[in-house]
Amino acid sequence: MTEYSLEEVLHPRSIAVVGASDEGRGSQFFGTLVDFGFKGELYPVNPKYTEVMKIKAYPTVKDIPGPVDFVISAAPAPQVPQIMRDCAQKGVKCIHLFTARFSETGREDAAELEKEVLRIAKEGGVRIIGPNCMGVYYPKMGMAFQPQFPKLSGSIAFASQSGQAAGEIINKTTRRGAFFNKAISYGNAIDFNEADFLEYFAADPEVKVIMMYIEGPKNGSRFFNILREVTKTKPVVIIKGGRGQAGTSATASHTASLAGAIEVWNTMISQSGAVSACSIDELVDLAVSFYFLPPITGRRAGVMAGAGGATVLAADQCEEAGLDVAPLPQEIREELRSRGIQIWDWISNPADFSINMGDDAFGPAELLKMMAMHPGFDLIIASINIPGWGGPPGGRGHRGRGSPFGRGGPPPWANMNLSPDEIVKQYTQIAEYKPVLGLLHDRSPAPNNDDNEQDDEGWKNACEVTAKLIEHGIPFYPTVSRAALAANKVIDYYQRRGR
Amino acid sequence: MTEYSLEEVLHPRSIAVVGASDEGRGSQFFGTLVDFGFKGELYPVNPKYTEVMKIKAYPTVKDIPGPVDFVISAAPAPQVPQIMRDCAQKGVKCIHLFTARFSETGREDAAELEKEVLRIAKEGGVRIIGPNCMGVYYPKMGMAFQPQFPKLSGSIAFASQSGQAAGEIINKTTRRGAFFNKAISYGNAIDFNEADFLEYFAADPEVKVIMMYIEGPKNGSRFFNILREVTKTKPVVIIKGGRGQAGTSATASHTASLAGAIEVWNTMISQSGAVSACSIDELVDLAVSFYFLPPITGRRAGVMAGAGGATVLAADQCEEAGLDVAPLPQEIREELRSRGIQIWDWISNPADFSINMGDDAFGPAELLKMMAMHPGFDLIIASINIPGWGGPPGGRGHRGRGSPFGRGGPPPWANMNLSPDEIVKQYTQIAEYKPVLGLLHDRSPAPNNDDNEQDDEGWKNACEVTAKLIEHGIPFYPTVSRAALAANKVIDYYQRRGR
Repeated sequence: MTEYSLEEVLHPRSIAVVGASDEGRGSQFFGTLVDFGFKGELYPVNPKYTEVMKIKAYPTVKDIPGPVDFVISAAPAPQVPQIMRDCAQKGVKCIHLFTARFSETGREDAAELEKEVLRIAKEGGVRIIGPNCMGVYYPKMGMAFQPQFPKLSGSIAFASQSGQAAGEIINKTTRRGAFFNKAISYGNAIDFNEADFLEYFAADPEVKVIMMYIEGPKNGSRFFNILREVTKTKPVVIIKGGRGQAGTSATASHTASLAGAIEVWNTMISQSGAVSACSIDELVDLAVSFYFLPPITGRRAGVMAGAGGATVLAADQCEEAGLDVAPLPQEIREELRSRGIQIWDWISNPADFSINMGDDAFGPAELLKMMAMHPGFDLIIASINIPGWGGPPGGRGHRGRGSPFGRGGPPPWANMNLSPDEIVKQYTQIAEYKPVLGLLHDRSPAPNNDDNEQDDEGWKNACEVTAKLIEHGIPFYPTVSRAALAANKVIDYYQRRGR
Repeated sequence: MTEYSLEEVLHPRSIAVVGASDEGRGSQFFGTLVDFGFKGELYPVNPKYTEVMKIKAYPTVKDIPGPVDFVISAAPAPQVPQIMRDCAQKGVKCIHLFTARFSETGREDAAELEKEVLRIAKEGGVRIIGPNCMGVYYPKMGMAFQPQFPKLSGSIAFASQSGQAAGEIINKTTRRGAFFNKAISYGNAIDFNEADFLEYFAADPEVKVIMMYIEGPKNGSRFFNILREVTKTKPVVIIKGGRGQAGTSATASHTASLAGAIEVWNTMISQSGAVSACSIDELVDLAVSFYFLPPITGRRAGVMAGAGGATVLAADQCEEAGLDVAPLPQEIREELRSRGIQIWDWISNPADFSINMGDDAFGPAELLKMMAMHPGFDLIIASINIPGWGGPPGGRGHRGRGSPFGRGGPPPWANMNLSPDEIVKQYTQIAEYKPVLGLLHDRSPAPNNDDNEQDDEGWKNACEVTAKLIEHGIPFYPTVSRAALAANKVIDYYQRRGR
C-alpha cells in the first residue's frame, strides 16, 4: 500500500467535519469551509444533528454516501480511535486531528491513546495532520481554519507546529500585504512532519517564500538535508519555539516536542542557509521582505527617518543592525549646490525631514530619489509621511487648541497637502531605482479616547496608503530598527546564495 | 555678578516670545503658553504686529513695560545678537533660543555668530537654553512647547539634546500614563548643559525618575561625577544619540556635538549605575517601569502571554531578556489538584490562556494570583485580555462570516464577558502581592479599512482599560519581549543600588 502524498491529501474531492455544529467551537471548521467556498463536497458529521448550517449531517463518517478524501476531527480524544477506524473503512486519505489532549498532556494514558490512533491510521492507510493543531489554510482550494483569513492567494508556504502562532503569523503577514499559497498547522506531528512539509514546499512551483514555526523537529537529519537544498533557490525563514529552559519545558506541554539544545539548532540553521527569527514580528518582517523585495546584495543604505534626534538614532540603529549608512556622495552634494539649495552642505545621509524648511522647492522625496539613482546606494529605508500620521503618536486627552503639529504630531513640513496616491507615487518612483523599505508606525491604545482619534483622517490616510504600497509591492515596517534588521538578514541570505 | 540658577530661570514672572504671530511657526510657542495658562505675564514681541492672539505686542523686548524674566526667540539667527543685547539691557534672566542655523550647520560664519551670541549673553548676565532646541515643558508652571502635551504633572524630569526626540518621548511616555515634572530640550547647549540639568534634577524633591537624550556631553567629567551620585537614589535612564559612525556624523549636523567613542561612553554609563536604552521605545519602557513599579530585586517571573506557541515564545523571550521563568512550584500544583482542576499537571509557567477551556471555574487570572502570592516569584508579566482586543491583530478586509474568534481574533475563552473595570480588577488584585507588567499590543494600519475597525469595541475597550490601568499604577507594554527587557534592567538597577 503506497502512502498518500501531501499533494494528494491537500486536494480533496470532499471534506467531512466530525463534531460540526451550528454554534460554538464545533462551528468553526465547518463554517469556515462553507464561508471559503470549498470547491468539493462538504459533510457535517454529528450524531446529535440531522443538519448543520442547513447541510445534511451524518452520524458517522461511514454513513456518508459519497467518497470522503479528507476528515477534520473536532471530537474529544477518547472518540478518535473509532473515528479513525471509520475513516480507514471509508477509504479516507487524511485526517486532520484538531483534537488535543494526547501526548502533550504528559500523561501516559494519553500518550498510549496517541500511539493507538497512529497504529490504526497506519494499518488503514490514513495519513494524519496533527493531532492538536489547526490544520490547513489553502485559499485556492477554499480551505481555512479562521474565517478572517484572506481569501486571496499568494506565494508563501508556511508550516507551523503551533496553531495559535500560525493564526497570529498569517494575520500579521497578510495585513502587510504578503499572501499565502498554503499554510499548515501540524501540532504533535505523529505522521506528517516538518520534513514532509518542507520537501513539498520546496518542489511546489507556486511557492516562492517558505516560513516555519518549529518547536521540536521529528526528523531532524532529513529536515536539515532538505533545508540545505531548498535555501539555494527559495528563502526559508524559521522561528524556533523552545530555545531556552522554560521554553523547552513549555514545548513539551504544548506539542510534546523535545526541543533540544539551541546551540546545535542555531549551528544547523546557519549552515543550511536558512534565515532565523527570534520573534513572530521578526519572522513576519522577514517574510514580507523576501516577498516584496528584489535580491539585495549590498549593505549601503540611504536613510530618512524623521528629523533631528530621530535622524541620529536611525543612523545608529541601521549601523547596529549591520547596514552601512554611507555619507552623502560628493556628486549629490555638488548637484544640490548647483541647483541653488541653500543648505547643500548640511544635507546628509540619513536625510533629515526638515531639509525643505529652507527651500520650498526641494523636499526629502527628491533627495531620496537622488540617492536611489546613485550607484553608491544599494537600498533605501524611508519614512512614509502621511498627513496626520507622519510623526510620532501625538499626545491625547489633554490636547489643547489646534496645533501647528496636527493631531498626530507630524512636523508641518511633512507632505501636508499630498493625497495617498501622491504620497505613494513618491516611493514607487524611488523603487524604480533601488529596493525601498517604508516606515509606518503602529498606534497604541491610550487613555481618554473621548475624541475618537481612531476615526480620524490620519488613520484613514494610513490605511489607504498601506493598501497602495502593497499594490505597488513596497513593504513597510513599524520601526527603522525592524526594517534595518530585516534588510540585513535579507542581504545575508542573497550574499550567501550568490557565492 | 552671580549667574542665575536653573531653579530661578525656570520660575519666571513673565515670558516674552520674540517672533510671536497669530499663525504659522511663530504661533507655536506663544499660543502654547496661552493655552497652558502660564501663570505670569506673557508678551508677544514682533515689530510687524500691534497685537498677537489679542494680547498687546511690542516691537522689541526693551519696549515691554514690566520686568521680563524669560525670553523665547523664534527669530532668525542673524537677529539674535541684537535680541541678546536687548535682553541684557532689560535684565532678562534666561533666553531659550529656538533659533537654529548656528554651529550645527558646520559653517564657520554660523559658528562665529554662535560665539558672539554667547559672549553678549555672558557679559549681560543672560543664561541660554539652546540654541536649536524646543525649550521648556513644565506643566506646573504652564510652560510647554507642544500644545498636545498633557497639562497633568508627574515625577519625571527629562533633559533632551533633541527637540524632536523630546516631543516623541514626552508623547509616548505620557500615553503610557507616566507624567513629567519638567522636561527641557537644550540643543547645542552653549550655556546650560547636560550636567547642569542632571544636577538640578538630582536635587529636586519632586523628581523621582530622570530621563536623558544626549548626543555629545559638553562637560563629560562633571556629568559622570553627578551621575554616579544621583543613581544611588534616583534611576536615570539615558539614550545616547550618535553611537556609530553615521550617527556620530549626524550629531554634528544636528546639535554640533562630538559624540565620541561609544565604548568609552558605555563603560562610563555602566560604572555610574545609570540605565542605558538603545531606542526611544526602550527609553520609554524603562521610564514607565521605574515610574510605576516598586523596587524589584529578583528575576523569577510568573508569565502568561497567550496560548500555545505564544506561550513557548514568551518563555524564550523572557529568558533571553535575562529573567528566570521558573517552573510552577509543587505547592501550587498540589493546590490545583486538591481543587479538582482536571489539568493540574499540565498547567505550567508560562501559563497558557487556554487553561480554563477544560475547567470553567478556573481561569488564567486565578493562576496568576496564585503565582503572585507564592514566594517563588518576584514579578508577574501578563497579557491584559480585552474583548475584541485580547489576541493578535485579526485579518481584515477579507473577513468572512461572524467569527467565533471575534473581530480581533481573541480566543473565545479570553474574558469575553468582562467589563474594563472587571478586567483591571483582576490585575490590581495580583499587583497587591507582586509587581505586575501588563501586555497590551498596538494596532497597525492595514489596507481595506472600509469596515472602520478603528471605531470598534475592541479599540474602545483597550483605551478604557489603559486609562484604568494607569489609574491603578499598572504599567503596560506592547510585547512580552519589551516588558521582559525593561524588567530585567529595572532589576539590574535595584540590585546594584542594594549593594
